[in-house]
Amino acid sequence: MSGTQAAQATNEAKPLVATLVHNGVKRIVMQRPERMNALSLDMMAALKAELLSAAEDPEVRVVLLGAEGKVFCAGHDLKELTAARAEEDGGKAFYLKTFEQCADLMQTIVNLPVPVIAVVTGVATAAGCQLVATCDLAIATDNATFCTPGVNIGLFCSTPMVALTRSASPKQAMEMLLTGESIDASTAKDFGLINRIVPRDYLETVVQKYAETIAAKSALTVKIGKEAFYKQLEMPLGQAYEYTAQVMTENMLANDAEEGINAFFQKRKPEWKNS
Amino acid sequence: MSGTQAAQATNEAKPLVATLVHNGVKRIVMQRPERMNALSLDMMAALKAELLSAAEDPEVRVVLLGAEGKVFCAGHDLKELTAARAEEDGGKAFYLKTFEQCADLMQTIVNLPVPVIAVVTGVATAAGCQLVATCDLAIATDNATFCTPGVNIGLFCSTPMVALTRSASPKQAMEMLLTGESIDASTAKDFGLINRIVPRDYLETVVQKYAETIAAKSALTVKIGKEAFYKQLEMPLGQAYEYTAQVMTENMLANDAEEGINAFFQKRKPEWKNS
Amino acid sequence: MSGTQAAQATNEAKPLVATLVHNGVKRIVMQRPERMNALSLDMMAALKAELLSAAEDPEVRVVLLGAEGKVFCAGHDLKELTAARAEEDGGKAFYLKTFEQCADLMQTIVNLPVPVIAVVTGVATAAGCQLVATCDLAIATDNATFCTPGVNIGLFCSTPMVALTRSASPKQAMEMLLTGESIDASTAKDFGLINRIVPRDYLETVVQKYAETIAAKSALTVKIGKEAFYKQLEMPLGQAYEYTAQVMTENMLANDAEEGINAFFQKRKPEWKNS
Repeated sequence: MSGTQAAQATNEAKPLVATLVHNGVKRIVMQRPERMNALSLDMMAALKAELLSAAEDPEVRVVLLGAEGKVFCAGHDLKELTAARAEEDGGKAFYLKTFEQCADLMQTIVNLPVPVIAVVTGVATAAGCQLVATCDLAIATDNATFCTPGVNIGLFCSTPMVALTRSASPKQAMEMLLTGESIDASTAKDFGLINRIVPRDYLETVVQKYAETIAAKSALTVKIGKEAFYKQLEMPLGQAYEYTAQVMTENMLANDAEEGINAFFQKRKPEWKNS
Repeated sequence: MSGTQAAQATNEAKPLVATLVHNGVKRIVMQRPERMNALSLDMMAALKAELLSAAEDPEVRVVLLGAEGKVFCAGHDLKELTAARAEEDGGKAFYLKTFEQCADLMQTIVNLPVPVIAVVTGVATAAGCQLVATCDLAIATDNATFCTPGVNIGLFCSTPMVALTRSASPKQAMEMLLTGESIDASTAKDFGLINRIVPRDYLETVVQKYAETIAAKSALTVKIGKEAFYKQLEMPLGQAYEYTAQVMTENMLANDAEEGINAFFQKRKPEWKNS
Repeated sequence: MSGTQAAQATNEAKPLVATLVHNGVKRIVMQRPERMNALSLDMMAALKAELLSAAEDPEVRVVLLGAEGKVFCAGHDLKELTAARAEEDGGKAFYLKTFEQCADLMQTIVNLPVPVIAVVTGVATAAGCQLVATCDLAIATDNATFCTPGVNIGLFCSTPMVALTRSASPKQAMEMLLTGESIDASTAKDFGLINRIVPRDYLETVVQKYAETIAAKSALTVKIGKEAFYKQLEMPLGQAYEYTAQVMTENMLANDAEEGINAFFQKRKPEWKNS
């Protein structure tokens, strides 16, 4: 495993995130289990740097986002937030910076041309739950749990709910936000927060196959589709159709569509040129 | 139990709604079972008055909205609507007033700084189903049923569907609206219309715990969060993040967030100041 | 069975779609099983013509959209699309025309004053899956499957996802779009893509009852409601309520609402005048 510069820009010996690129799949693993993989400014910067470098690496066609330890991610770093109270403005500038950086990280995932799959093997809370909700897809082990418990410490999970309410329905999201209670993996699947639940022993096999299935597609086609997916979601129906009719026309004129359709007729595997 | 003035502003001996405030929880109970708790102009006015007075009462941190009898609420008062046909304009002004007052009642719930939980122990139809869909949360007994049967009497449930389609998915909502058929509690939970289903004998215990769980949070934090919840729902993603990053920053600067986080570190119960 | 002119405007002996109007229900059945009922330009034109003629036929109060053979609809006609590559512009004009005509067909269903119910007895892929997602309601046999496999041939299902993401939640839709894998009828129901699942032997009975239940309503009321349904879906809450309060007021002033409410009080069946 080798981290990039950004991931290593920390005073600690072990990089914040470990990364590995293999067979078109980039794994990004948060490795601060002793700090519950909290989204400190450094951790958010490391994640963003690794995501952006995945987008620039032509070899990478899928990103897996996982974590070491029993806590996938516990959200923001409360110690870091508390320390900022000592500042002249009571921390205001620091808080705004933190929440804006967090929003920026989430939108980096949405805007990334490569699909990002969360691999959740433990507890995902607050901005950690938001991270799962934000990823394009999510696989979880059957012991994973999810919650937005900010309300318990007087700090409503207001940025996490942006992602949460774009997955779960309003009452489902509101219950998590108002009670601060955890939901299990099965409920999270019902809520649309995750796609698949896998027993721990089968996780690696399933994640591998899932990622390779997507990595086998044309990266260009996936890029075109992912971008259009989120754009059209925010449009009224008529405009969404006008826009996607254009998108599909451009897609049809790409080499990969021609190759893909020819391969389909010839009953052979397509060879993507990503052009 | 004691009703407020608004609730008692009726010619009948028994107020339209009974109310009780205890341990931070205000119960509002519609008590016109013989009229299926129909949303007459008077009933809507009584409900709105009780909701607004809950918002002004610093003791109230959660509202429970229930009903006496086998029918939670049967929607608008068809006798009242029919009587208005005798008016010069055929009832037009009265109908508009009724539907606008209904829309105003629903939006009063959405805009209330205090969470409103529907407690559904029977049949919820038309605007009664809308009332359940509109509440922030809903608990129902296992014999509760839900329908939007206006289509059966030539009057499509057009205002109820505003709330219904913001809970259920389009085809689920459309089936209820076009067939006029009832769904049971289990289906209503699948549709995102209610949060929990409880056997009648357990209802009081569960509702009590559920309400007290939420009442134990900082009222200020809940107010900040509920307001942001519905506002960001209607924004595109980027704007929703800009807005909620601001909201969370303000929230962090409130005394209750400082107290909540300190209490968390000190492993003690927080003492909210609602400031 | 008798097809209209549009359906017969083909060089082949058998019309593209068969139609039958009986008891207020119009059946439109795609009958190109040997071409997997692909949405060629001709097939789309035939479907649109039959839908529009249903809207103009006062006898028709519900449309059923089904297909002959094991494939409900396989989406666009890849042979037709491939042939267009020989054109001077590489097919660009033809592709845009195809996707715009497809978008127009889908919006014809949404804008039709009469409910359209998909009856899915086999495989629905790509624009065929979109067709199911677009219909107001859908019934499927238990062996029906659904997928958006464009990504496998380098052509992301960008127009199908407009309808898909307005039924299923984002991660559910994204999984179908990125993996290209099929889901079964049960999963499709969980995703909100279909309303009911029926064993093949019971299909005719269930579809008949379902269609007749809706055909028994006032066509005027259904028209008012269906139009308002999709319009209010795209409005913010306050505007949706303003609009639907107006819609319900107009609906109350229609003869059918007066008749429906009178019949309800008199415990008799209403006689609709559709005025």
